[in-house]
Amino acid sequence: MAAEIESVPQGTVTSPEGFFAGATSAGINKKAAGKLDLAILFSEAPCVAAALFTTNRIKAAPLVLSQQRLKQGGAGAVVVNSGCANACTGERGLAHAAEMAKLTAEGIGILPDDVLVASTGVIGVPLPMKRVRSSLEQIILSRDGGHELAQAIMTTDTLAKETAVKVRVGDSEFTIGGVAKGSGMIHPDLATLLCFLTTDAAVEKGFLKKALKKAVDVSFNMISIDGDTSPNDMVLLMANGLAGGVPDDAFQQALERVCTYLAKSIARDGEGASKLIEVTVAGAPNLAEARSAARTVVSSSLVKAAIHGADPNWGRIMAAVGRSGVEVVESKVDLYIGDIPVVKAGRPQPFNKRGIVQLLRGREVAISLNLNLGSGKATAWGCDLSEEYVAINSRYMT
Amino acid sequence: MAAEIESVPQGTVTSPEGFFAGATSAGINKKAAGKLDLAILFSEAPCVAAALFTTNRIKAAPLVLSQQRLKQGGAGAVVVNSGCANACTGERGLAHAAEMAKLTAEGIGILPDDVLVASTGVIGVPLPMKRVRSSLEQIILSRDGGHELAQAIMTTDTLAKETAVKVRVGDSEFTIGGVAKGSGMIHPDLATLLCFLTTDAAVEKGFLKKALKKAVDVSFNMISIDGDTSPNDMVLLMANGLAGGVPDDAFQQALERVCTYLAKSIARDGEGASKLIEVTVAGAPNLAEARSAARTVVSSSLVKAAIHGADPNWGRIMAAVGRSGVEVVESKVDLYIGDIPVVKAGRPQPFNKRGIVQLLRGREVAISLNLNLGSGKATAWGCDLSEEYVAINSRYMT
Repeated sequence: MAAEIESVPQGTVTSPEGFFAGATSAGINKKAAGKLDLAILFSEAPCVAAALFTTNRIKAAPLVLSQQRLKQGGAGAVVVNSGCANACTGERGLAHAAEMAKLTAEGIGILPDDVLVASTGVIGVPLPMKRVRSSLEQIILSRDGGHELAQAIMTTDTLAKETAVKVRVGDSEFTIGGVAKGSGMIHPDLATLLCFLTTDAAVEKGFLKKALKKAVDVSFNMISIDGDTSPNDMVLLMANGLAGGVPDDAFQQALERVCTYLAKSIARDGEGASKLIEVTVAGAPNLAEARSAARTVVSSSLVKAAIHGADPNWGRIMAAVGRSGVEVVESKVDLYIGDIPVVKAGRPQPFNKRGIVQLLRGREVAISLNLNLGSGKATAWGCDLSEEYVAINSRYMT
Repeated sequence: MAAEIESVPQGTVTSPEGFFAGATSAGINKKAAGKLDLAILFSEAPCVAAALFTTNRIKAAPLVLSQQRLKQGGAGAVVVNSGCANACTGERGLAHAAEMAKLTAEGIGILPDDVLVASTGVIGVPLPMKRVRSSLEQIILSRDGGHELAQAIMTTDTLAKETAVKVRVGDSEFTIGGVAKGSGMIHPDLATLLCFLTTDAAVEKGFLKKALKKAVDVSFNMISIDGDTSPNDMVLLMANGLAGGVPDDAFQQALERVCTYLAKSIARDGEGASKLIEVTVAGAPNLAEARSAARTVVSSSLVKAAIHGADPNWGRIMAAVGRSGVEVVESKVDLYIGDIPVVKAGRPQPFNKRGIVQLLRGREVAISLNLNLGSGKATAWGCDLSEEYVAINSRYMT
């Protein structure tokens, strides 16, 4: 049974039935006066939920709390702030996260244990709880509040990242929505990313977990901005069941579409980035090696800087794949920039330099490698490395 | 028996007895007209030799040739060029490397099999052999030619990297000299680095190999500029025995001193770098984890950019050690910037922001972490990430 998947115009995390959101400007980040920085996402029907968290050994307080709560049950709401990561903040940080959840629960009228917490921003600074307390009361939840939430979770992001798809398959119809933030500290195994996904499909918890893991593996786990990961990374999927049961494969397909869209939006909007880089590795001995090779190339500072300057220095791509730890036989490698063959069977091909420079100047640059050793294939996304990235990150706190 | 180790004034790779070098400007890199770019290093007495090569699966032609020759025997001379890596150049590249060795051997009057070859520069471009042939004849070897060789192997390096130490222990006296080049594509497991080490000590081949590996592990394998490694990396140690036998421990100690000096010089002179960063991790469960943690912190783009801007964003250091894959218990971690405690037992400490900014503005920034879990300790070196790094690497070829 084929599923029809279409984008929802102005789709967001509150596009699925029964989801509400709202945000306010709490002044958590004093340097971004007036910016929305505190938000709530709420489902009027109880949710089954699944989440993936950072692999970083340093875990932010809100993440520790959310991880515990998700083990015990579902999730009815999420409260999230930007401007302060509430990480490396010790016992006080945990108390702050718990208080945020409690105040949110009281405002909505649900149990504190059903509220998850997420934060993003500077590490090592305590949350200004006085402001958080007085601001939480001011948040007004609405059916199209997803757009406000998408704004509220932005830090150095230049664009809000949100989308939704509507799926029709047989007699059933359901929606999946999502918002995300990214920008810096983005690398496979999650990243400084927050992503909230919602659906009105009725999905069993075990399947929801597997579906999320699978979707994240081909999307958020295939993007890299700078090789760093953060203590706050979290991808959460809430399913409230209001649209009834749906076929597993249609759900998986739609979820991967939403996640890939958001992941690419994050890569494209990396700190200081001027373009999206897409690296596809085919012919690897297996899928794991294809993934690893694609991720290594898209993460290479030298490759990223060369593409930033539209410099056809393809040797750096060869060098990056060579150090990826993946099996590579130089005399078998094919390399394309866009559609232009640059290396065939390990031999440099004569190419029109102007043509390549033109391609590299585009807003999207595609690099493909065929290792010609097996059938493993994977795609990774990243962005160029610009002077602006350094400028942003050399005065983030000061 | 304690060894007295002292620096040789203006020490270089030809400081040990019996070593000669010379260089010329062959015009291999057309953009650096007049720059020395082709050099020969030669020992008048036959050498025992040991080397470490890149772990990159893509290996440059000169490296393939040198690796084969070293397996079969020793090394009497090295011919080296900058401006062209002779990598990804297929059969033709191998023929070019072999011809360079043959011409060098003929000029000196030794066997071609005793000549090793090294190259550094742009990948994927064939060597301009006509220029190489006519220029090799012009090289004049001399006892203080090491300085010319140090100049000739530079690419984006801003300073020549060379040193020598004289060691007195009991009745014996010997010298170890070395030159290196670095700059970009520098990461543990060697890097875009060439390093030639020489000694007049008489050392048995088996010990020479082990001593080199051990010295490289605490020096060149502990530096990172940008996370990339190259197809051309090579560290070569030649021992001609003219000074007679020496105690193993004195040799090891002196060799590590030379290698650490050169490695730190490379880190300090990373592309676009304005300062040296030294990261020491103590209290790791074991040595391997200490090494891994120190290398991860010194390689983090976010840490490097923050230090560039003298931004006291220490949370990024915590986040980097947290993602290093090493065992970390947040509540046990101590973090110092210079001598100033920033985190104690996982808790942020109040600190004088101006004091830290002052420290971060220095030419050398020391970061120390104690994980308080075991006795593993290691130090890694790197440099800050500047707008200039991006500028250099976005127009390397164009």
